[in-house]
Amino acid sequence: MSSSAQRTYELDRAHVFHSWSAQSLLDPMVVERAEGSYFWDGDGNRYLDFSSQLVNTNIGHQHPVVVAAIQEQAARLCTIAPSYANDARGEAARLITELTPAGLSKVFFTNGGADAIEHAVRMARLHTGRPKVLSQYRSYHGGTQTAVNLTGDPRRWPSDNGTAGVVHFFGPFLYRSEFGATTEEEECALALRHLERVVEMEGPSTIAAIVLETVPGTAGIMPPPPGFLAGVRELCDRHGILYIADEVMAGFGRTGAWFALDHYGVTPDLITFAKGVNSGYVPLGGVVIAEHVAETFATRAYPGGLTYSGHPLATAAAVATINVMRNERIVENAATIGADVLGPGLRELAERHPSVGDVRGLGVFWALELVRDRGTKEPLAPYGSSSPEMNEVLAACKRGGLVAFANFNRIHVVPPCTVSETEAKAGLAILDEALTLADRHTV
Amino acid sequence: MSSSAQRTYELDRAHVFHSWSAQSLLDPMVVERAEGSYFWDGDGNRYLDFSSQLVNTNIGHQHPVVVAAIQEQAARLCTIAPSYANDARGEAARLITELTPAGLSKVFFTNGGADAIEHAVRMARLHTGRPKVLSQYRSYHGGTQTAVNLTGDPRRWPSDNGTAGVVHFFGPFLYRSEFGATTEEEECALALRHLERVVEMEGPSTIAAIVLETVPGTAGIMPPPPGFLAGVRELCDRHGILYIADEVMAGFGRTGAWFALDHYGVTPDLITFAKGVNSGYVPLGGVVIAEHVAETFATRAYPGGLTYSGHPLATAAAVATINVMRNERIVENAATIGADVLGPGLRELAERHPSVGDVRGLGVFWALELVRDRGTKEPLAPYGSSSPEMNEVLAACKRGGLVAFANFNRIHVVPPCTVSETEAKAGLAILDEALTLADRHTV
Repeated sequence: MSSSAQRTYELDRAHVFHSWSAQSLLDPMVVERAEGSYFWDGDGNRYLDFSSQLVNTNIGHQHPVVVAAIQEQAARLCTIAPSYANDARGEAARLITELTPAGLSKVFFTNGGADAIEHAVRMARLHTGRPKVLSQYRSYHGGTQTAVNLTGDPRRWPSDNGTAGVVHFFGPFLYRSEFGATTEEEECALALRHLERVVEMEGPSTIAAIVLETVPGTAGIMPPPPGFLAGVRELCDRHGILYIADEVMAGFGRTGAWFALDHYGVTPDLITFAKGVNSGYVPLGGVVIAEHVAETFATRAYPGGLTYSGHPLATAAAVATINVMRNERIVENAATIGADVLGPGLRELAERHPSVGDVRGLGVFWALELVRDRGTKEPLAPYGSSSPEMNEVLAACKRGGLVAFANFNRIHVVPPCTVSETEAKAGLAILDEALTLADRHTV
Repeated sequence: MSSSAQRTYELDRAHVFHSWSAQSLLDPMVVERAEGSYFWDGDGNRYLDFSSQLVNTNIGHQHPVVVAAIQEQAARLCTIAPSYANDARGEAARLITELTPAGLSKVFFTNGGADAIEHAVRMARLHTGRPKVLSQYRSYHGGTQTAVNLTGDPRRWPSDNGTAGVVHFFGPFLYRSEFGATTEEEECALALRHLERVVEMEGPSTIAAIVLETVPGTAGIMPPPPGFLAGVRELCDRHGILYIADEVMAGFGRTGAWFALDHYGVTPDLITFAKGVNSGYVPLGGVVIAEHVAETFATRAYPGGLTYSGHPLATAAAVATINVMRNERIVENAATIGADVLGPGLRELAERHPSVGDVRGLGVFWALELVRDRGTKEPLAPYGSSSPEMNEVLAACKRGGLVAFANFNRIHVVPPCTVSETEAKAGLAILDEALTLADRHTV
């Protein structure tokens, strides 16, 4: 390791407290350099980034146009308080609302996805005057109190200490259906019936909102069956419940569309975003707000805020990112790579590797379920945990020069939306080899 | 207004949803340019910034060294996931822990102050295994669910919907003493006795932490009497309760010391920071963690995180900011301006203006209480609200070219820590004239 990388490693171990981790069990890779679909460790080894970090660098690392825009805005005006009108803030809001469905015309900017969810839920509660919010098991909505309580994975459990008003339900997920369904149509119908039942049992007049990742991300990349989201919209309309679409991970090109919603033709009342909006080059998130919800706060103050709401540097990066994505047809690239390379390539891997139980996704947003037995679908790591077998596969990927995103028994193939056909194929080849290790653990 | 400013104004009104506001009642000033202690509106009018925006631009606007550091880091590496070791992240953590009391050696980075509080409270609950957290009436801790529930001002009320485990108590505040005290010594003793009583009534074994702004900020800039924080520390130690010091607004030079804590010689278990750490040039906050708390998460995972934890661009800005503050003796400047110019100047204003009921503060962190009657202390605006009389004073400041920070019946004089003697005196002169309007409303 270079002496500067060594120094970075030592500083990290001495002073940096890491997310979601047991601190003394960490051995973090040093990364000080990245470009496009690649990053380099402290020894100069190059890795193909099939994680997009935390599924956020949708335009790849260090896009020169966005880097230049950040540098220019830094020279002009780094920050100004939320109460002022600022050109970068206004233009970012305009561009974002141009991409969302008609009727969603206002943007409340936050620092990331968690506070976007916090504020969307607050808006919904105050707009409806109702206390409860429903969300799915198998979901992730962020790390602050309301966001983590809405989360439907084990990361919620240590924070389940008395926050009222959150109810979880099961969403559609054919591969591990809660409902015994055997087709997408049946799964859709049964999941909607289940949700309707939960609404009925909780009391429609007590429910402010249903929060859904349009395509659940870290929880497993499960594109909903056709008709499910339209059914949710209809259920919400019937009972005066708001529909909050969490597009933090799925938005801004990830699924081969600007928003995952675009695949389903539904219009929510609130959309949360972060990550891809500026690829995380500067921390930014927000809530896009339908006019009828914004109207609630026309003459009555919205009781929420933050120092960096509409941060000029962060919103200037969003303006540049959205323009670059349009000019370079980056969303179209994600769609093409998904349809022509990743989708067929991953399905082909599944045919040859008995450890692959399921392949699902779209755009540059794919999950492989690794199993010990395709018949029983017994996962290669238990729900909520990892396993030596999964670690073996991930280590093989890394040795091969590939970093993928892993969760429990799944490998997520989530490269930047800018990934080339050559890079995508190179990644698939490394994965192919690593999966032979998983195959050894199948029955 | 210039045509570009006009365009910015229109984009704002069409698409930007603002913090803490009734949206249709807003008429935001356009700001696209700022430098040092000044910013300019869309008509080219210059304002002396006695607000430091939201009390965050401690090094003033657009410090060239920090702007250059942001530009350099942008060219090198904008972002990388929290799991990696990165030089900017590690160096920022080292510099911050160099400034905090001994024993506080780890930094968990967040995006701002609210999520810093969220995570500090989670750490305290898990470390102690206890549910409750105590905080002061007259405090502000942020806008997300736990943070806003801890907040002791009316901004909490609309979010008081069932979050368990938060208890408020009265802190020391001699000017409006809850305890009938007439001296700082008496206020200190009675406030400590009150806090001890609350701990006793709530049950010490149920209390994870006491959260205190070292000097409460937006709630009124009330430096605690000597001995109060030492008493809190002692009370915490006696009962195994953690002491969380919220230094989001008071930290990084604001009080003429690196941390407000430095004036009182106490060592908390957790310190939250944001704002001044990089003057808000890039969104950043965090928690500095004592070794015995970090130890709890050595082999057991800390259940919290966020995509932008330890963001390279944000932490590079912190590194440059801390170095600039050291090299240019900016903290020392804040202390000197406070002791030699603002303190004496504001007290002199209070002597001549019957509308000034109280002057308090230190460094570049001062509050004026405006009252209708010095005897009764009747405020010029009611608690939780504004008034036409206050608006009149603020408008006069603005006409004179000064923007101060206002809250209820108070004007906060909170210029950058870099403010010069000439600028400070110019601001006092404008304030002097504006206060004559307030005087007309006194009995």
